[in-house]
Amino acid sequence: MAHLSGEHLGPDRPSGLLLMSARAFTDLFDPGRLARLHRLVALDDPIRLDDLHDPAAAPRLAHAEILVTGWGSPVLGPDTLAAAPALRAVIHTGGSVKQHVSPAFWDHGILVTSAADANAIPVAEFTLATILLEGKRAATYIDGYRRHREVGGAWRDTIPSAVNFGGTVGIIGLSRVGRRVAELLRAFELEVLVADPHASADEASAVGARLVDLDTMLSASDIVSVHAPELPDTHHLLDERRIALLRPHAVVINTARGTLIDTDALVRRCRAGTLRAILDVTDPEPLPPDSDLFDTPGIVLSPHIAGAMHAETGRLADSALDEIERLRRGLPPAHRVEGESLGIIA
Amino acid sequence: MAHLSGEHLGPDRPSGLLLMSARAFTDLFDPGRLARLHRLVALDDPIRLDDLHDPAAAPRLAHAEILVTGWGSPVLGPDTLAAAPALRAVIHTGGSVKQHVSPAFWDHGILVTSAADANAIPVAEFTLATILLEGKRAATYIDGYRRHREVGGAWRDTIPSAVNFGGTVGIIGLSRVGRRVAELLRAFELEVLVADPHASADEASAVGARLVDLDTMLSASDIVSVHAPELPDTHHLLDERRIALLRPHAVVINTARGTLIDTDALVRRCRAGTLRAILDVTDPEPLPPDSDLFDTPGIVLSPHIAGAMHAETGRLADSALDEIERLRRGLPPAHRVEGESLGIIA
Repeated sequence: MAHLSGEHLGPDRPSGLLLMSARAFTDLFDPGRLARLHRLVALDDPIRLDDLHDPAAAPRLAHAEILVTGWGSPVLGPDTLAAAPALRAVIHTGGSVKQHVSPAFWDHGILVTSAADANAIPVAEFTLATILLEGKRAATYIDGYRRHREVGGAWRDTIPSAVNFGGTVGIIGLSRVGRRVAELLRAFELEVLVADPHASADEASAVGARLVDLDTMLSASDIVSVHAPELPDTHHLLDERRIALLRPHAVVINTARGTLIDTDALVRRCRAGTLRAILDVTDPEPLPPDSDLFDTPGIVLSPHIAGAMHAETGRLADSALDEIERLRRGLPPAHRVEGESLGIIA
Repeated sequence: MAHLSGEHLGPDRPSGLLLMSARAFTDLFDPGRLARLHRLVALDDPIRLDDLHDPAAAPRLAHAEILVTGWGSPVLGPDTLAAAPALRAVIHTGGSVKQHVSPAFWDHGILVTSAADANAIPVAEFTLATILLEGKRAATYIDGYRRHREVGGAWRDTIPSAVNFGGTVGIIGLSRVGRRVAELLRAFELEVLVADPHASADEASAVGARLVDLDTMLSASDIVSVHAPELPDTHHLLDERRIALLRPHAVVINTARGTLIDTDALVRRCRAGTLRAILDVTDPEPLPPDSDLFDTPGIVLSPHIAGAMHAETGRLADSALDEIERLRRGLPPAHRVEGESLGIIA
């Protein structure tokens, strides 16, 4: 089976199929974006499926040159490849293809792209805003004011000093998101440290940050934000020992993956009153309703909202549409996922 | 009495006196900044006073060429001028001089400077972070998750759509803070509208915003942030009629002055469930503990924290020290407060 690579799409509209949930489809493609998709790709009805056992799947796969995938996509395995001899490219509208695209696709020379860059934007924005408000201790003041109902009372004196001028932010992982957080932080007067075993000092300084080892960073930072991938050797990257390195009144932000942090050790340190944690992801996820994370002072849980949602998913659709348009024009893809990178990225 | 203007300070260290509370002094001048102050200004003991009736005041005022004022400064009236025949400049370490420097100082040619630009920075940062998190509806999700303990439940569907890609932010007042908020927002994909009767369309577009009239802006914005000065004609600038113009699920942020908003009208609309308000200032301030503002769903009160606090006050001291250094070098002041501007600025 000789699949042509995605870069060799011709000038005619390639035959395509969307693989994603109905909800993902509606979120991603408003009428304007759907019209653009139809201009770029020939789509027969049903244009979208979320189950490859659907009787409509086989005849569509038999002709499909492009698969556009999204949340709720079925897993694409070697059998999908065999059923799709004309396939040249899988264009994913989400951040990570690891869960649904088999390594066989790279072996067969299929181009795989993702919208990870577009999805990094809202995560970095959420992180930046959280850093600025935690650096101000805003949530602690808001909570104290609600309880004490006295704007200038002695209760304020128990709140640790704000750090938004000259404080230190530590970024774990110079990933897409980590890099963007560092870049956004350049507009503010904070020192930015980065710890990443795969990054160079030059890469860190290119985004206004200083590369240090993880332990050094943890003991030097007022606010630490986690942007590492979930891999065997990043499981419990923040374990009990490293959590103990964090400064008194430090704040940990996790928008990456719950398993990067030892939850029990985090809860213990937060219960001791010397650490705050803002967690958009947890281990496990979903959390059982009786999880300690819900009931530990200093832990704030947001329900996995940092990534693209609502209007923000338009960015993901735009990224996929731009990618298809580049291929149609004979340009190289902008967001290719390299097969060998799957071991080190999210 | 012929006061020389501040611009004509000679090469010798001018005689100075600090007028501010002990707390303000400690917050502003850490050892490094205090050493710099001593290098720039000749200061006899006591270097700081907060009461001009103190017996030490008269002999110090008699020689003072520079007064450095801060929070807790006594009011400086015509009698202060009379007692300070050598006075050339009042260097304020806070944002506004309106409450403590008499118009007579301008009449006598005394240079008055403020740290308003430096104090605008943390206010703009707090506002930006609040815009980004409100645009994500983050506080609503965090609150819902705490109550429902279910990460993906149906409760999420009742939360209005996030607006952080393509949404509209309205800025009332292209003031120091408003201008800086607009500039910070350039890094994000939001439309920015400005309403300000004293600003031109060019001034707005110079910071990436579009000038519109206030009513148009209120009905077109997802998030509205108030940065207008407190003046007779800005009292209840957001009155019942204008609050009614705000979109369903709009968010109002006020870090300026409480009296700019009709509190009762705001409470009524928030109680109806179609508006949120993040208020760092209130009318009155301090609030009585039984104020409706504490008990209205959708209203979040922060206790006047947007301005400089803790480490952030170092910026104010730096601004004042830089100003004194410029005067010592014969350079024009960078942050002069014009007497005629007192009617239109905060």
